Amino acid sequence: MTGNQHPAGQSVESTEQDVRAKLPRRGLLFGGAAAGLGALAAAGAQLAGAAPQDGTPAAQPADTVHGGGTVPFYGTRQAGITTAAQAHGVFVALDLRPGTTRAGIRALLRLLSDDAANLTAGRPALADSEAELAQVPALLTVTFGFGPGLVAAVDPARSPAWLQPLPAFTVDRLQPGFSDGDLLLQICADDPVTVAHAQRMLLKDSRSFATVRWIQTGFRRSYGSEKPGTTMRNLFGQVDGTTNPAPDSAEHERVVWGGGDIPAWTENGTSVVIRRIAMNLDKWDEVDRVAREESMGRRLSNGAPLTGTQEHDEPDFAAVSKLGFPVISDVSHLRRARPEDGSQRIFRRAYNYDAAPGSGGISDSGLIFVSYQADVERQFIPIQRRLDEMDMLNQWTTPVGSAVFAIPPGCREGGFIGEGLFA
Amino acid sequence: MTGNQHPAGQSVESTEQDVRAKLPRRGLLFGGAAAGLGALAAAGAQLAGAAPQDGTPAAQPADTVHGGGTVPFYGTRQAGITTAAQAHGVFVALDLRPGTTRAGIRALLRLLSDDAANLTAGRPALADSEAELAQVPALLTVTFGFGPGLVAAVDPARSPAWLQPLPAFTVDRLQPGFSDGDLLLQICADDPVTVAHAQRMLLKDSRSFATVRWIQTGFRRSYGSEKPGTTMRNLFGQVDGTTNPAPDSAEHERVVWGGGDIPAWTENGTSVVIRRIAMNLDKWDEVDRVAREESMGRRLSNGAPLTGTQEHDEPDFAAVSKLGFPVISDVSHLRRARPEDGSQRIFRRAYNYDAAPGSGGISDSGLIFVSYQADVERQFIPIQRRLDEMDMLNQWTTPVGSAVFAIPPGCREGGFIGEGLFA
Ligand code: HEM
Ligand code: HEM
Repeated sequence: MTGNQHPAGQSVESTEQDVRAKLPRRGLLFGGAAAGLGALAAAGAQLAGAAPQDGTPAAQPADTVHGGGTVPFYGTRQAGITTAAQAHGVFVALDLRPGTTRAGIRALLRLLSDDAANLTAGRPALADSEAELAQVPALLTVTFGFGPGLVAAVDPARSPAWLQPLPAFTVDRLQPGFSDGDLLLQICADDPVTVAHAQRMLLKDSRSFATVRWIQTGFRRSYGSEKPGTTMRNLFGQVDGTTNPAPDSAEHERVVWGGGDIPAWTENGTSVVIRRIAMNLDKWDEVDRVAREESMGRRLSNGAPLTGTQEHDEPDFAAVSKLGFPVISDVSHLRRARPEDGSQRIFRRAYNYDAAPGSGGISDSGLIFVSYQADVERQFIPIQRRLDEMDMLNQWTTPVGSAVFAIPPGCREGGFIGEGLFA
Repeated sequence: MTGNQHPAGQSVESTEQDVRAKLPRRGLLFGGAAAGLGALAAAGAQLAGAAPQDGTPAAQPADTVHGGGTVPFYGTRQAGITTAAQAHGVFVALDLRPGTTRAGIRALLRLLSDDAANLTAGRPALADSEAELAQVPALLTVTFGFGPGLVAAVDPARSPAWLQPLPAFTVDRLQPGFSDGDLLLQICADDPVTVAHAQRMLLKDSRSFATVRWIQTGFRRSYGSEKPGTTMRNLFGQVDGTTNPAPDSAEHERVVWGGGDIPAWTENGTSVVIRRIAMNLDKWDEVDRVAREESMGRRLSNGAPLTGTQEHDEPDFAAVSKLGFPVISDVSHLRRARPEDGSQRIFRRAYNYDAAPGSGGISDSGLIFVSYQADVERQFIPIQRRLDEMDMLNQWTTPVGSAVFAIPPGCREGGFIGEGLFA
């Protein structure tokens, strides 16, 4: 992972892992470090008085809480991608105001980079009007993405070939209000107040240069609610995210960060595809567990392939039932989504959404499908095309939004995200 | 707190507190109980590998996580009121379908009570279509409230006098889409997936009897993100909830659960007022901290009254500045909201909201103001009337929704919420 070094020589990923590591350990060790197991039990007992309901702070060490955790903003690569997905994620797409100049975009990016650096460190943003809300970073990350319009406004000659709206797919029912955009702000943290505050600060500082095109708010299980490392479930109840290149693997490096013959300003960058995919829970209710599992090729209980027992068992696509039918259907999502070769791999980092239903309905739920890959054209599109042709899951899912952004590399202190594009 | 006993003789509140207490303690003790501090450090180190990013579960004891915590559903009183506020809260108002009979309402309430009992215990709801999502109760509570229409449909003679829409206030800009309703489902938990799942299950089972009138989704800081007992902050950055009758106090008992000369079916019940109050962050940005603090009568830093230094210091309304002006302004929110006598007290349990802004805007934020009181007329309305007449905070806040519900008592196993109304 040589391309993966922090300017100061410290790897971005390991810094992040240190942070995650320190939080629980500090909490666990507090009592023990103080005076052995007796103190530990006492610390537990103190926690027993937890949440005195009149709002009086309990006598309790500050560092048993997780809200202080930070993920470094500065680094060769942007945070929020390899970072283990936080519980809350908001995706904001901005449109540049007509007539915004190259210099204006540059000023905007510098301003937002500074805000992001401060907020992710638990410091108030520039002229933060609610400075107290900045005090709980809760592993906040802010990741910037550039849409085709922004790159074209700065330097059209250096736009990656894949930076354009996806081709039309027959399954699509896209709404402009959830599609495209010039600048993406991906704001993720383990605390929803932190996310709301960061969103507000970044949008305030964007206001003179850009307008909000769309905002999508998503969630996963909350911090500490399940065992660390548990794969998320989507609102169909499926284990979602099993087959994903592990962040510390060479494959992840290749799939997400690619490299090779690319515009220099995109080195240590990647791309993101954000598809808002409505999941029709009413129709999903009409099918039983057997049919549900068949459509996916995996079990609902633990996400194991229908040919295995454990979540991470390798699926056996050759296995047939007594009647001679494939155990994992040829038209299951698993089979169809599975890349034909290693060049078609993506890194998924989705969030659930659950919006207020329209008139007469009882839910408007789905997935903010988020996938990172070095090259949209070569990696993402072949998979989406195959799913568009045939995928049992299509019966219950409808893409209603779609956007593609280039994720520029990170920056060092004093720099700003996207500076390479202006060089 | 004699009116406060669980049918089985166990108090509901203390059961809840036991639950909150056990969670952190179990986590803290695991390593130590196993083999002393060495093992403890090892457990910490294991957590260091936390969240292996390919989804492989880390080798870690299940009970260091908080998602297993439950709040008993059955009891003399409904949960979700005295319960320390969870991080996520959804408020759903249903309208009964025209022609729904008394028997239909009864069937609906029985069904929903059973679902709530199961879901809050971490068990799937009846015919739960995503049973796996029920496995993380995360202190889920489901609290039912009856609007004027529901009570009228069952037994109009027994409607409490205060069960009607609030009188019109001059500050109001109410939208029907956030006001009134026949049946309230208040769903709170420390995990947003848990809330989404419970909401879906309850709405599915409501569908034949009722339609969704409005849904309001709110949040506070996430579980464990701050020290237990920290008073929440709203999106103006204010410490919000300081002066609130402590759940274990005689005052809370009187304010919330009242008693006295009331319809029998409402004994051990209360009322809830839910006001959606838009907070104009753009206008709020125009005032500096001094003016902000003056409008409230409290400090932004820690919520202390302007005459004190600590959050819970008693405000001194008689104190005057060197120039002879009151230190806490007569038109501050603190001064105006402060009850004239003990009969005008309420118990607040608010959530922040942050919705997608309308065209041209950058935020649509505010407070889901939630207040419980035994008698809306005597306790809530005088305060709201005084704030309506004069409150500096009104410059930045606008009520856009308003609803009043009677909260019936709890029920025992085999019973259902509201059964007393049918007796
Ligand atoms: C709402 C829509 C979708 C749902 C509910 C969904 C759900 C799932 C689930 C449950 C799995 C199996 C577990 C796993 O490996 O994560 C899976 C696998 C996968 N999905 Fe999706 N998916 C959706 C849309 C998409 C889209 C739009 C794409 C890409 C165009 C995609 C690409 C993949 C890939 C590459 C895999 C891994 C296949 C393998 O094992 O090699 N999915 N999806
Ligand atoms: C968005 C609107 C509102 C905001 C931002 C807000 C904020 C606050 C804040 C920061 C405090 C001081 C700390 C505390 O004791 O909680 C407070 C106190 C209070 N508020 Fe509000 N409030 C709002 C609306 C209301 C409404 C509608 C009512 C009732 C009609 C109300 C009743 C009270 C009461 C009773 C107190 C305690 C006063 C005392 O110390 O005796 N508030 N509010």
